[in-house]
Amino acid sequence: MAPDRAGYRPAMPTSLRALVLNCTLKHAPADSSAELLATEVIAALARHDVESTLVRVVDHDVRFGVSADEGDGDEWPTIREQVLAADILVLATPIWMGQPSSVCKMVLERLDAEISETDDEGRMVTFGKVAGVAVVGNEDGAHHVSAELYQALNDTGFTIPANAVTYWVGEAMQSTDYRDVDPRPEKTASTTSVLAANAAHLARLLRSEPYPPAG
Amino acid sequence: MAPDRAGYRPAMPTSLRALVLNCTLKHAPADSSAELLATEVIAALARHDVESTLVRVVDHDVRFGVSADEGDGDEWPTIREQVLAADILVLATPIWMGQPSSVCKMVLERLDAEISETDDEGRMVTFGKVAGVAVVGNEDGAHHVSAELYQALNDTGFTIPANAVTYWVGEAMQSTDYRDVDPRPEKTASTTSVLAANAAHLARLLRSEPYPPAG
Amino acid sequence: MAPDRAGYRPAMPTSLRALVLNCTLKHAPADSSAELLATEVIAALARHDVESTLVRVVDHDVRFGVSADEGDGDEWPTIREQVLAADILVLATPIWMGQPSSVCKMVLERLDAEISETDDEGRMVTFGKVAGVAVVGNEDGAHHVSAELYQALNDTGFTIPANAVTYWVGEAMQSTDYRDVDPRPEKTASTTSVLAANAAHLARLLRSEPYPPAG
Amino acid sequence: MAPDRAGYRPAMPTSLRALVLNCTLKHAPADSSAELLATEVIAALARHDVESTLVRVVDHDVRFGVSADEGDGDEWPTIREQVLAADILVLATPIWMGQPSSVCKMVLERLDAEISETDDEGRMVTFGKVAGVAVVGNEDGAHHVSAELYQALNDTGFTIPANAVTYWVGEAMQSTDYRDVDPRPEKTASTTSVLAANAAHLARLLRSEPYPPAG
Repeated sequence: MAPDRAGYRPAMPTSLRALVLNCTLKHAPADSSAELLATEVIAALARHDVESTLVRVVDHDVRFGVSADEGDGDEWPTIREQVLAADILVLATPIWMGQPSSVCKMVLERLDAEISETDDEGRMVTFGKVAGVAVVGNEDGAHHVSAELYQALNDTGFTIPANAVTYWVGEAMQSTDYRDVDPRPEKTASTTSVLAANAAHLARLLRSEPYPPAG
Repeated sequence: MAPDRAGYRPAMPTSLRALVLNCTLKHAPADSSAELLATEVIAALARHDVESTLVRVVDHDVRFGVSADEGDGDEWPTIREQVLAADILVLATPIWMGQPSSVCKMVLERLDAEISETDDEGRMVTFGKVAGVAVVGNEDGAHHVSAELYQALNDTGFTIPANAVTYWVGEAMQSTDYRDVDPRPEKTASTTSVLAANAAHLARLLRSEPYPPAG
Repeated sequence: MAPDRAGYRPAMPTSLRALVLNCTLKHAPADSSAELLATEVIAALARHDVESTLVRVVDHDVRFGVSADEGDGDEWPTIREQVLAADILVLATPIWMGQPSSVCKMVLERLDAEISETDDEGRMVTFGKVAGVAVVGNEDGAHHVSAELYQALNDTGFTIPANAVTYWVGEAMQSTDYRDVDPRPEKTASTTSVLAANAAHLARLLRSEPYPPAG
Repeated sequence: MAPDRAGYRPAMPTSLRALVLNCTLKHAPADSSAELLATEVIAALARHDVESTLVRVVDHDVRFGVSADEGDGDEWPTIREQVLAADILVLATPIWMGQPSSVCKMVLERLDAEISETDDEGRMVTFGKVAGVAVVGNEDGAHHVSAELYQALNDTGFTIPANAVTYWVGEAMQSTDYRDVDPRPEKTASTTSVLAANAAHLARLLRSEPYPPAG
């Protein structure tokens, strides 16, 4: 494919898969601002030929633990299959007390199992996957949430594209929900677009040119 | 180039440049464990055809601020030129009280200026650059330091390769320095190798296939 | 009571109550290093005439949420009664990926309900209670865990005495558990003593001289 | 003094001293939103008979380091004298990239020296002092800043009263400064009042009833 005017040549135009995990504390059908932002990320990814699956984690019987399967009806293994089949993982989380949700932390702990799940070349099975973050709260906390998530996702083998977080929070000590903001926040929308474009681009690159085997 | 047995095909074997900023609080020639780990990262990068420059930030008159040039003898602009010329930026920092050094924070604040320095296509000039982190301390704090740095580096346009941190810390409340650990910590060495391999690989990919222009 | 040689006069020698919540991910009877450190905190508190109750949160059916009672068999209300009856709350948590456990985050989210539970004088019902933290991990993360917990506990009305954390972590990337360290770490033991002495002292002061009503 | 209707009896009505350190990156006379919030904290403390001193740290030649005196014209020792003379220390900091300012981190590193400066009874000279936090930013980061500061201040011997932070931040990705918010944010004002009332109360209690000597 020829470079365009800006010298940009899209990477291999393969269709990609994303898994978006909504880490709200609330069971469906309760409203979830994290779900709204998650669906906006999914729409933005679709513009880059990425097909997404959205899972509301709390509606599944995921157990506390740090293994790939805690047994006894644990439903993480089904979600884990979707993680492994995806090129892009997006964690969407509400902010509580300036921090990621406990459901989000439970997901990260389950991903921790991948550190010891290496392939024949010594690479984690997550290597080559790209991760993004979507954060919503009434007020304050998005940067810290992304810091916590980047670190845990990176430790477990994910690559973080440039500007990998989209978020919305309101003014200090206010109580507006993202889903009720009117008019819709334009800056969040454009940030979501950048996240989607960069995640899709990087996932294509890493699919065609995987990381080297461990030394 | 043909894929090898593992399906791995090295990306374009161009020579790359790395800038490694040692964020110790101590002026040369004082010993610095951060400097030791930084030189180990440089040696590991060299095995992937990356030429590095090491700068001890505190030995330069870098001013507090959030602009590209604070004027009046500010020496950040010289370091900034090296950041912009590099494909890979590595921040090496000691841990104080479980947190990154103030010198490291000063560097991140200066990088914050790049958020408003966009090219004709709306991309930060840092876009396409890859960042890694090297952390040392007597005890405790490496994960949190990497979280803080990943977030600030990612916000300012850097891409974070899988497993982008190498570190060493001792047992809780102990006072051994990294440079005095005997025998040398093998796990830190192998982690340094992975960081270098992944950073070099990703920097090559992004140099040959840049991120798309902003929507 | 007369001041002693150092000018120190113990506060009102009333018997106090502490609630210690073990936030391990593992159900009883699995071994828990957090439980071991929790029992050491309890022993240290007993030397200051504090009676403690230890609860392993994961053995109770605590629901995700941010209200005082999520209904439908939620067992948080029972634990909440114990929080409200206590003068001192200690959160004991393992470190996973450098961060507090998801069970610990779930507890903090439930405590978030107290922000809107104020008395006739506009004070949270937690006002005047003192909080401490006990953290264990194979390696790295105790300072950050205490930072996260101090902030969430302070936001929900708790007072943090000087040196309010005791912890143990091993050398970087090692896998020793606290319960297997031999000989027992002396520095952790003396830190546990300081935490207990300061928490008991401050809880007595605040019991006899409560914070003023909100302006 | 007799308890009032609510059972509240003010602690010993001694006059107290507070030191408020403004950790802005900008030299005087540049406008500083952190300075505005700092002066509001000082006014609130005055209502509790606390006399405050305000220092803009960046206007003094404070050196990077972790000792009580770095020599060679270092101006920290003068500020340190004020810390030691104060009953209450308030750190006022802007947020950059969701994190405390580098100047604030430099101050915390200098306070780190106090960990090894113990009195004849084994207590840090900071023991018995109370700390509070004031945070301002265009958007996002106040909770995380308070977490970082609470931890570092607590590690160095300070006690954290209930609800020890006052802050203001705007909506996500906006650029309004605190000093330009109109009308003035009422919630920040009432939070500042609570911080001042609690800090003054606790400082009085700890002055009259110091922590016990280390075991």
